[in-house]
Amino acid sequence: MYMNEDKINKVKISTDPYKGVRDFYPEDMAIENHIFNIWKKTTESFGYEEYSASILESADLYKAKSGEEIVNEQTYTFTDRGGREVTLRPEMTPTIARMISAKKRELSFPLRWYSIPNVFRYEQPQRGRLREHFQLNVDVFGIESTDAEIEVISLGYEIMKSYGLKDTDFEILINNRKVMNYVTKDMLGLDEDKSQKLCKLIDKKNKLKPEAFEMGVQELLTDRTPAFMTLLNSKNFEEFTKNLKQTAEEHEGLKEIKEVIAGLDRLGIRNVRFDQTLMRGFDYYTGIVFEVFDTNPENRRSIFGGGRYDELLSIFGGEKVPAFGFGAGDVTAKDLLEIRDLLPKTKTKTELYICPMQKADIPFANEIAQKARTDGVNTAVDYSKKKVGDKIKFADKKGIPFVTVIGEEEKNSGTFKIKNLLSGKEEVTNVDSLSELIKKL
Amino acid sequence: MYMNEDKINKVKISTDPYKGVRDFYPEDMAIENHIFNIWKKTTESFGYEEYSASILESADLYKAKSGEEIVNEQTYTFTDRGGREVTLRPEMTPTIARMISAKKRELSFPLRWYSIPNVFRYEQPQRGRLREHFQLNVDVFGIESTDAEIEVISLGYEIMKSYGLKDTDFEILINNRKVMNYVTKDMLGLDEDKSQKLCKLIDKKNKLKPEAFEMGVQELLTDRTPAFMTLLNSKNFEEFTKNLKQTAEEHEGLKEIKEVIAGLDRLGIRNVRFDQTLMRGFDYYTGIVFEVFDTNPENRRSIFGGGRYDELLSIFGGEKVPAFGFGAGDVTAKDLLEIRDLLPKTKTKTELYICPMQKADIPFANEIAQKARTDGVNTAVDYSKKKVGDKIKFADKKGIPFVTVIGEEEKNSGTFKIKNLLSGKEEVTNVDSLSELIKKL
Repeated sequence: MYMNEDKINKVKISTDPYKGVRDFYPEDMAIENHIFNIWKKTTESFGYEEYSASILESADLYKAKSGEEIVNEQTYTFTDRGGREVTLRPEMTPTIARMISAKKRELSFPLRWYSIPNVFRYEQPQRGRLREHFQLNVDVFGIESTDAEIEVISLGYEIMKSYGLKDTDFEILINNRKVMNYVTKDMLGLDEDKSQKLCKLIDKKNKLKPEAFEMGVQELLTDRTPAFMTLLNSKNFEEFTKNLKQTAEEHEGLKEIKEVIAGLDRLGIRNVRFDQTLMRGFDYYTGIVFEVFDTNPENRRSIFGGGRYDELLSIFGGEKVPAFGFGAGDVTAKDLLEIRDLLPKTKTKTELYICPMQKADIPFANEIAQKARTDGVNTAVDYSKKKVGDKIKFADKKGIPFVTVIGEEEKNSGTFKIKNLLSGKEEVTNVDSLSELIKKL
Repeated sequence: MYMNEDKINKVKISTDPYKGVRDFYPEDMAIENHIFNIWKKTTESFGYEEYSASILESADLYKAKSGEEIVNEQTYTFTDRGGREVTLRPEMTPTIARMISAKKRELSFPLRWYSIPNVFRYEQPQRGRLREHFQLNVDVFGIESTDAEIEVISLGYEIMKSYGLKDTDFEILINNRKVMNYVTKDMLGLDEDKSQKLCKLIDKKNKLKPEAFEMGVQELLTDRTPAFMTLLNSKNFEEFTKNLKQTAEEHEGLKEIKEVIAGLDRLGIRNVRFDQTLMRGFDYYTGIVFEVFDTNPENRRSIFGGGRYDELLSIFGGEKVPAFGFGAGDVTAKDLLEIRDLLPKTKTKTELYICPMQKADIPFANEIAQKARTDGVNTAVDYSKKKVGDKIKFADKKGIPFVTVIGEEEKNSGTFKIKNLLSGKEEVTNVDSLSELIKKL
């Protein structure tokens, strides 16, 4: 790659990132890593294993799932030089479904898999909706029973707790597609098309004015509207089942909801609530859906959610595989932690800053650094011509907790002082005892 | 995103990944994470901070640096719906240069930054050269002296040691663009164009037959060929400086090489060798260049390398900033570790597998799992209807070291046996002592 010198001098290039995506400077990356580490640690504590894939996927993967419309309008899709239509993945679920289908015979089910992919959407950038964001994907494949729901929802609960939130800070809302299908098809007698329209309307309920919502319902249901509105306005699970004229014992969908709520309760997870208006966007859901919802009056919004999608793998021509999972975005997580002042305070992972007095002291400073690093202390050396006082100020500004100054005397004696910039404490040490002293201070 | 059911049944989608990119199943991801963790840990031990950016960049960023040719032929470049020309980054250096230029006044130099981006090249896939790979980028900005070279090259050395390699397994080759410029321009009197051609020729030397190489040289240098060939064939640094008729004291470029070799030697890094044929592809290098080279006769190849590029930031219209860094790819690292049998052997991070005898034992199993996870033990529960023996076999196959079986008796007594599948040892415990026992076993 050879540079054209004429060009360099003529063109002045913009330093802005591409529209709708983010640059992560070290202070931004520290926040991302804080969130990613909570995701990884919690998910791995449940025995989940990390997988990944390229952001580049064949456009066909999304066409089949969602119809051509979405591929054209909301995704980054382009044709490569070999004539292949390529899409930057807008979500991870089709990819994991593809990967599992490809090796279904070799894999031992159940699979507990997670990933933190970046996903892309071509849309107008706005708060919390960028063109690229990172998304934790947690999925379990091969468990038919609601044990999967209980496990995965409790995993989501543990993530919220690891963020530093209390039970009163959020709610877990639960519904079941099987119940909604029963309502729209069996009870209200709607066909597939009208049933989908009603579900979409319920999904948008909170964004619409009550009158607009009722008008939409009236259009679809005419004289069945009052019965439906009574059902929709039920205050809790008991009232809903009563209005539905079905008991949890009679209806599988209701039974599953009861099982999940009881299983979570047994684990001490009680900020759980049945919500008959909970839809979740994706149409591939087939059973329980859930959503973690922020109860902060200033941030009343969905944090993350997911559901059961037992049919999805059949798009690759094989049998269906029971599947339950959720996706959680980094932007929403960051906003949540920011509002509640739960972002990490430490500025750097560097622990020790070595300040040589003069150029001649650098080799000894490098040797100390080398030993400190081997002993697990993250260490940087100041090679500048600045005065020692300014070197220490630099360490302080960067948030590095320990400093040492190396000069003629230290070089000759082999001993030097380690100072804790926060407490002001200092103590004399040598290369071999340095890491222990730092742990102590 | 609503699914079109007709489509699903008609289209059978391929399960292959897009051409030239990889799927990372958990066993592949474990290898990636092993390499990434070594990169992160080593780099952070030197006080480097992680940054990142989107894979999407304005195509202009690459046009200015390398001329339009490369943007068109070797990159993924497409026009977005807003008419912007977008490129999937082929390397990270232009991005870091852009980010630093954007905030130059706010940032406190020196900056020690690293990132592990995925980068894209549109080329025919072949061993070690995929269309997408991950690349550690380590860069220090703001250090003019060779202290930067000594620090960054010793960081590269520590990565090789952390992989598990010995000093005899690899060599660090060093050269200086300043010396090569002196040779081609001052000594041989070549103009910029011919000088570049000669450098490219030297870069390709090992891939050409000796006669083809000499013919190329002859064409450029005519009667100056013998003097040049003597120089190029110098056996070591001393012979080279003698043939150059310059001493390390007289020539800055030679002095820098001596300083770097001496500084590394002082840190015990002695598998370092001056190599006058080392060029490194990128034309933005301005001083010392280096390469870590595998000495295994079956894998004689460059592992990674980098150099000084003090001028690059001026493409954004600002002043130049001293910069030194390198990039190391994941595919090369994986091949290296594979050939030397240094890949990790552990199959999973899950430590405990709980096997309930019957459905009724699941709630208690979940409670044990919940406590174990809180205490730092990665735990999964088997919810299947398989026989207990098959559940234990499943754990063994997955490589999970500890199992426990939960039945009526365990539920009533609150105590259960933990078995180490590797040693066969087992011991009775309860929920509160479980994590300590696992550490012990």
